[in-house]
Amino acid sequence: MDAQLPEPEPLKALVDALRRLPGVGVRSARRMAYHLLQNDQVGAQRLSQALASALQQLRHCQRCNNFTEDDLCATCANPRRDPSLLCVVENPADQNTLESTHGYRGLYYVLMGRLSPLEGVGPVELEFERLLKRACDGEVKEVILATNFTPEGETTAHYLTELLRARGLTVSRLARGVPAGSELEYVDAGTLAWALIERRNA
Amino acid sequence: MDAQLPEPEPLKALVDALRRLPGVGVRSARRMAYHLLQNDQVGAQRLSQALASALQQLRHCQRCNNFTEDDLCATCANPRRDPSLLCVVENPADQNTLESTHGYRGLYYVLMGRLSPLEGVGPVELEFERLLKRACDGEVKEVILATNFTPEGETTAHYLTELLRARGLTVSRLARGVPAGSELEYVDAGTLAWALIERRNA
Repeated sequence: MDAQLPEPEPLKALVDALRRLPGVGVRSARRMAYHLLQNDQVGAQRLSQALASALQQLRHCQRCNNFTEDDLCATCANPRRDPSLLCVVENPADQNTLESTHGYRGLYYVLMGRLSPLEGVGPVELEFERLLKRACDGEVKEVILATNFTPEGETTAHYLTELLRARGLTVSRLARGVPAGSELEYVDAGTLAWALIERRNA
Repeated sequence: MDAQLPEPEPLKALVDALRRLPGVGVRSARRMAYHLLQNDQVGAQRLSQALASALQQLRHCQRCNNFTEDDLCATCANPRRDPSLLCVVENPADQNTLESTHGYRGLYYVLMGRLSPLEGVGPVELEFERLLKRACDGEVKEVILATNFTPEGETTAHYLTELLRARGLTVSRLARGVPAGSELEYVDAGTLAWALIERRNA
């Protein structure tokens, strides 16, 4: 059903552009295009402009690699953050989640991805050299690895641990264990096994 | 985790604009935004431009309501199509699918939706008046209702049948039955029931 009809060129170009979004196939792309053109022209206009201004105005923070409009992001520019702690996360959403705990006053480094050899993402693509340079600025004492607890996130954490330890830094990882407020009966076995191994003095 | 951090304004605007797409929640919107900004700036540029030119260049065909760059779409402007047959479909993708059968030489009318009271889509929103005017041009003899066989599509077909019959037109619906090439054992009971009711002389 794909290219049976001579579709108007602008519609075809729009569907093709939408298909490049992660998780969007040709059917979703069509549905999105019809929806925008038929029912939400304001939204289409807004999306077009938002893309253009994001491309024009956003760059990476020179210190933490997060998106920012200035040379330094708001967090890195904040003099009240503790410069001896550096927390490494996969993406800006993870940083937001950690900030929402109000329990961390150090700085961040955003990888903008994780090691994934199958997708061709290696240490070079993630610019590990830049992270190492940042971590070895003399002020950072401890690096907290807060990548996801997925296979890729764990691999990234292991790899970074080696690199950072070799440079004399203290490296830690977020604790694994039973989620707050949960009943043991409903906790999966893998999590419980880790909680046993990493048990602490009561 | 939503708005904990002072995010850069352009990033926030982009995520908000992406959330307006059908089937995209805040997490997908974030993933899309990070992906576009980090890994596919060319794609972001292309999407921005595709949206702008689609909005600017596309309008509805005066006869069939499909998207087109001109007053009339290629199908309606084709003098070799049979003007006595009018096939009503929900959206352009359905028209493409029907065209791919190479078994229909009549014209189309694209509703750009279906009746859905829960979503506030009624006969006024779908501009049924326009379809009726189109069907009563004097040339159309038979209207083939090819809306989907979903509850909404069936409702739309029933509703249109009443309206069109009252105007003296022959109204037909796509046949329901056993899909070509399928074994009866694997056909669902509802489909089989219809195939029995609508059995034809062998």
